[in-house]
Amino acid sequence: MKNILGNALTVTLFGESHGVAIGAVIDGIAPGVEVDREYIAAKLSLRRPSGKISTARREMDEYIIESGVYDGKTTGTPICILIPNADTHSKDYSALAGKARPGHSDYPAYCKYHGFEDARGGGHFSGRITAPIVAAGALIQAALKRKGIYIGTHISRLAGIEDAKMCPERDVSALEMVEFPVLDSEAGERMHAAILEAREDLDSVGGVLETAVVGMPAGVGEPWFDTVESVLSHALFSIPAVKGVEFGDGFALADMKGSQANDPYRVENGKIVTTTNHMGGIGGGITNGMPIVFRCALKPTPSIAKTQQTVDFVKGENTDMTINGRHDPCIVHRARAVVDAIAALTLADLLTVRYGTDWLAQ
Amino acid sequence: MKNILGNALTVTLFGESHGVAIGAVIDGIAPGVEVDREYIAAKLSLRRPSGKISTARREMDEYIIESGVYDGKTTGTPICILIPNADTHSKDYSALAGKARPGHSDYPAYCKYHGFEDARGGGHFSGRITAPIVAAGALIQAALKRKGIYIGTHISRLAGIEDAKMCPERDVSALEMVEFPVLDSEAGERMHAAILEAREDLDSVGGVLETAVVGMPAGVGEPWFDTVESVLSHALFSIPAVKGVEFGDGFALADMKGSQANDPYRVENGKIVTTTNHMGGIGGGITNGMPIVFRCALKPTPSIAKTQQTVDFVKGENTDMTINGRHDPCIVHRARAVVDAIAALTLADLLTVRYGTDWLAQ
Amino acid sequence: MKNILGNALTVTLFGESHGVAIGAVIDGIAPGVEVDREYIAAKLSLRRPSGKISTARREMDEYIIESGVYDGKTTGTPICILIPNADTHSKDYSALAGKARPGHSDYPAYCKYHGFEDARGGGHFSGRITAPIVAAGALIQAALKRKGIYIGTHISRLAGIEDAKMCPERDVSALEMVEFPVLDSEAGERMHAAILEAREDLDSVGGVLETAVVGMPAGVGEPWFDTVESVLSHALFSIPAVKGVEFGDGFALADMKGSQANDPYRVENGKIVTTTNHMGGIGGGITNGMPIVFRCALKPTPSIAKTQQTVDFVKGENTDMTINGRHDPCIVHRARAVVDAIAALTLADLLTVRYGTDWLAQ
Amino acid sequence: MKNILGNALTVTLFGESHGVAIGAVIDGIAPGVEVDREYIAAKLSLRRPSGKISTARREMDEYIIESGVYDGKTTGTPICILIPNADTHSKDYSALAGKARPGHSDYPAYCKYHGFEDARGGGHFSGRITAPIVAAGALIQAALKRKGIYIGTHISRLAGIEDAKMCPERDVSALEMVEFPVLDSEAGERMHAAILEAREDLDSVGGVLETAVVGMPAGVGEPWFDTVESVLSHALFSIPAVKGVEFGDGFALADMKGSQANDPYRVENGKIVTTTNHMGGIGGGITNGMPIVFRCALKPTPSIAKTQQTVDFVKGENTDMTINGRHDPCIVHRARAVVDAIAALTLADLLTVRYGTDWLAQ
Repeated sequence: MKNILGNALTVTLFGESHGVAIGAVIDGIAPGVEVDREYIAAKLSLRRPSGKISTARREMDEYIIESGVYDGKTTGTPICILIPNADTHSKDYSALAGKARPGHSDYPAYCKYHGFEDARGGGHFSGRITAPIVAAGALIQAALKRKGIYIGTHISRLAGIEDAKMCPERDVSALEMVEFPVLDSEAGERMHAAILEAREDLDSVGGVLETAVVGMPAGVGEPWFDTVESVLSHALFSIPAVKGVEFGDGFALADMKGSQANDPYRVENGKIVTTTNHMGGIGGGITNGMPIVFRCALKPTPSIAKTQQTVDFVKGENTDMTINGRHDPCIVHRARAVVDAIAALTLADLLTVRYGTDWLAQ
Repeated sequence: MKNILGNALTVTLFGESHGVAIGAVIDGIAPGVEVDREYIAAKLSLRRPSGKISTARREMDEYIIESGVYDGKTTGTPICILIPNADTHSKDYSALAGKARPGHSDYPAYCKYHGFEDARGGGHFSGRITAPIVAAGALIQAALKRKGIYIGTHISRLAGIEDAKMCPERDVSALEMVEFPVLDSEAGERMHAAILEAREDLDSVGGVLETAVVGMPAGVGEPWFDTVESVLSHALFSIPAVKGVEFGDGFALADMKGSQANDPYRVENGKIVTTTNHMGGIGGGITNGMPIVFRCALKPTPSIAKTQQTVDFVKGENTDMTINGRHDPCIVHRARAVVDAIAALTLADLLTVRYGTDWLAQ
Repeated sequence: MKNILGNALTVTLFGESHGVAIGAVIDGIAPGVEVDREYIAAKLSLRRPSGKISTARREMDEYIIESGVYDGKTTGTPICILIPNADTHSKDYSALAGKARPGHSDYPAYCKYHGFEDARGGGHFSGRITAPIVAAGALIQAALKRKGIYIGTHISRLAGIEDAKMCPERDVSALEMVEFPVLDSEAGERMHAAILEAREDLDSVGGVLETAVVGMPAGVGEPWFDTVESVLSHALFSIPAVKGVEFGDGFALADMKGSQANDPYRVENGKIVTTTNHMGGIGGGITNGMPIVFRCALKPTPSIAKTQQTVDFVKGENTDMTINGRHDPCIVHRARAVVDAIAALTLADLLTVRYGTDWLAQ
Repeated sequence: MKNILGNALTVTLFGESHGVAIGAVIDGIAPGVEVDREYIAAKLSLRRPSGKISTARREMDEYIIESGVYDGKTTGTPICILIPNADTHSKDYSALAGKARPGHSDYPAYCKYHGFEDARGGGHFSGRITAPIVAAGALIQAALKRKGIYIGTHISRLAGIEDAKMCPERDVSALEMVEFPVLDSEAGERMHAAILEAREDLDSVGGVLETAVVGMPAGVGEPWFDTVESVLSHALFSIPAVKGVEFGDGFALADMKGSQANDPYRVENGKIVTTTNHMGGIGGGITNGMPIVFRCALKPTPSIAKTQQTVDFVKGENTDMTINGRHDPCIVHRARAVVDAIAALTLADLLTVRYGTDWLAQ
């Protein structure tokens, strides 16, 4: 299905970093969902580069809703969100043509698109293409909040520095709109310092984002092949830089005993819960009513100013390259808005499959 | 798409652990693919429980090809593989009705299917349902080998014990048909001992499987949303017990600098390669011609003989339970055949999208 | 999507006429739907050849439900219906190898499958493959009836002989289980005579089936591209022999004025209705609450005993051929059960998309 | 899949008649396809209202390619085509709110969207939404022509007046760019007169479009459920006003004998052909190398200036209405460009499935 995500509620993505515009089409949304333009703008600003820890490229992300919204509410027909490109410095990139930036998609893209790809600024592979995902996700996330479903993410690890442990019920709402989302502000300061240090070194750093979703009804998802883990990971691995995804205790579960890993069930206030949540709210691929918890590993930004060994794939010969231009020494904090958006879109899709096309606005 | 995996080459899965039969339908396969029944049987035997480290349930997995194969070759029309169930001891499970086995799907399944699910032996959620996936995957994997694409998996970690590091080009073929696939036989013996010890303790252990694919052409996959990571993880997270998936150096990349993580390109013998493979053969969601490398974290088997706290979800009250019956103290080695099958099916689907419906037999 | 029909409620089809078995997998059905085995058998018998107006091949169509049904009700997991093949006389067909039977799929199939297709008895193209569709459709149709949605079909035209006009509300239930469904029994007798006459002439006849669906809620379907007409015609044109599909007054609308064709709305007993139904219950691709009415044109059976001009497509030379074996001089009456099944499956899919996965059993 | 058409080559449609813009996203197109902007503009002008036989609404259809095209060629990533709306007279429609225009989607849309739909000018149901389909189709049709595949359509019937019979090989190219496509110019004049007469009568007329495709390779399509007829009809029935679709001799086949309907095969100039083409180039759902021939029945335009009986569906009461504003007395000739576009998109999708993602530009 290529550039289309979802089954009942879909998002079609388009655009290149230095093209005319980028955008997304949301299809299958319930009619009557309130569209909060301020909220969407606020989410876009969380993704936008800002300050010294980001690229100097200034993206205003002024978005236009071309269709599907009338009198401030969704009509139920497709919503096209368009973000015109601006402040594109294509000349920065022209010297790179034919040279494979290490860690970037240039060479695999060339193998797929035979040189017809718009390589300027990463083209369709650019992290910039996540902006319409954020806008689309924000529209949906606001609707999920009205249904009692809350999504929040913190930087659980950056450059080897750990944040405090998240308590989903307590933290998700508080985290949602924080620009640099950490629970331990002192750890956050050290992370900032590590980013600036990497920038000084003409280098970059990566990290881990941990997300929790509170309020998902039990009984959503499928045993095969659309487990909640399957559809979430499918979407999350589309985010550039994500190279690992785990649910609940994830890789740590591999070292546990069954007696440690199994979450005991209890009845609490008339509701069935588990006393631990090693499984991250999902059993047999289906939600069990506990918070959904997952983590994404993000590799360090590949665009670094150090000189690197590479090839000219058109000429087929070895070369060196130094990538100038404006780069992010870290995109972990910016990726957070994308992860939240992806979670909102994916879960809303599963809910629409389960409860029908009117549910989100009911 | 629920119980259907894939876009151009699809697998539809059906069956319950204690029903009449389980099976899969492969659709979209090229006509003229040789069907090696011995190879399929050998793959099924790798998944089958055997010896003291597995459940005592003896599954013969005699499979019937009901359609789609003629004169030993695929016709190009759908292949139904049916595996009749046998040796089902449903009475072992009847006492459990309404009780949520911790770590199992019983309670989420009840929330989804309202009590109409066939809960015997895990029903449609049973690990047994992976047998037809293995058969379908084996048929495809044999075809991929003829095209020069090799898949191999080892147990990189079990109960905290690490295997030696894999070298894909050297190891994948050697690993393919080993029953307990490790590179370091001494580590393998300690893993065996750990499994038997868990069994003695009425407990279970988990582990990590590492898979490599050698020979994939560069330029396969999509930037959004069908990245190679996306479609592989989607399928892998359908395997019961998988709670984490990572590509290349995965979570370890989060702690690296860009200058460490970026794989330098070089021309070697006229071919473009990377001198390291931290990205696991995938850049921008697309294959770059290097070996694809990924790891799956498997939680310990949830069926343990220890008494556990739980609830009766029909009555809505707390209870204790002891799960009798025949259980696996570890399924990591058995899951290996499933992971290989899933990799074969998923990559063949991407290749079919890319090169058309005849490619696999050309 | 090849051999898979539907979005939320899917049917995957497999099997060849002279292979081991044929069958279908229903996925996405609500849990708790009662499975009436007698009703399914009765529907299969309507499709089965019988008497002098059909082929002499006796198909018992004993079907096995391999999965997805427990205690007489659907579990909500995939239902595999298997029909073993019997009474296959493959030798009747062996002389035809390489010869393109006119009006049959032999030659296009050869172009697609390169000679690997199982050509015996039409293989995967055989009308016999509709039997599992009928079984799957019957299971769903019974569920739709419990929800107040009724489907009925009559032979509106056969060999140029017209049946009386259908009044949906009055006729659909009465027609459902009649073996040779006509409203005017005298016309029915003339149709019978025409079939027998064609058989005498070593020839065959075609006809038109008209179907009505009563009780569909208004507001189901999509403007683009899943209009009710789109999804119904997609499925109906899969039935071998169907070469035309029209809704409401269909092709006759092309000759009308807007003032004649527009159905005036009125309030009747507090319900909004149209006083005519030229549109066949669908406006803008969406149901309007009036009966859905459509007609399928079925070409005459291509297997005729007359000698015909053709080619040997392997040798690439002209030849003549006489098709022996057992053939139907008419399949219009047998196709009726397939049309009803296709209507049930397609509409249930649209309803599942609209109202969610539990709706059919609620 | 709602507003998305296709499997390997998809089109996602968005927009409302009186919204900001309408558009389409093409995904899955081969990289390196030349984009002929003049050709696209010419096709759009064929769809555009013009002269006395169309609505007085002047639509310029200036289209913007927002993405996916670089240096005049497709990049292989999604192409967003945007057409800003202009000359919208929403006040013409405001008096109609709550009143169901007979023959229009107002009432079924209200049942589906609960009053949140943008009803102005038909909103997302407007015939205007076909403009981006035409643009997308034109881009593809030009590519098909370079591969030797030609599509042409004539008005075979309008207001009961018949055009001459089409000979595909001779006529398709000649017809392609004619504004009012008929083979018999005298019949064309009578059709014109009938349209003007209907306009005088405050009424409208319908007709039949016949399309042929020359040059399709044999062996494309699927037996179930993606027959060429299935996927074409699915797409064609999305065009507003289409209420019937037939292939080859279509409904006339129902009255033929098998010996008349079967197309005899012959070898001609070393190529296998049929001496007649009653089947319209499709056998068993698969192309046989002969021209594909199909016809669409278009109902008369529902917007007529005569006073009509209807209901106010919000108030639930009977009323009369007179539709003012600018209307088409006939849209058959304008729909031609849409039918050609739909044929191009659908066949290119089937070809992409069959031959892979590079084929269209090879």
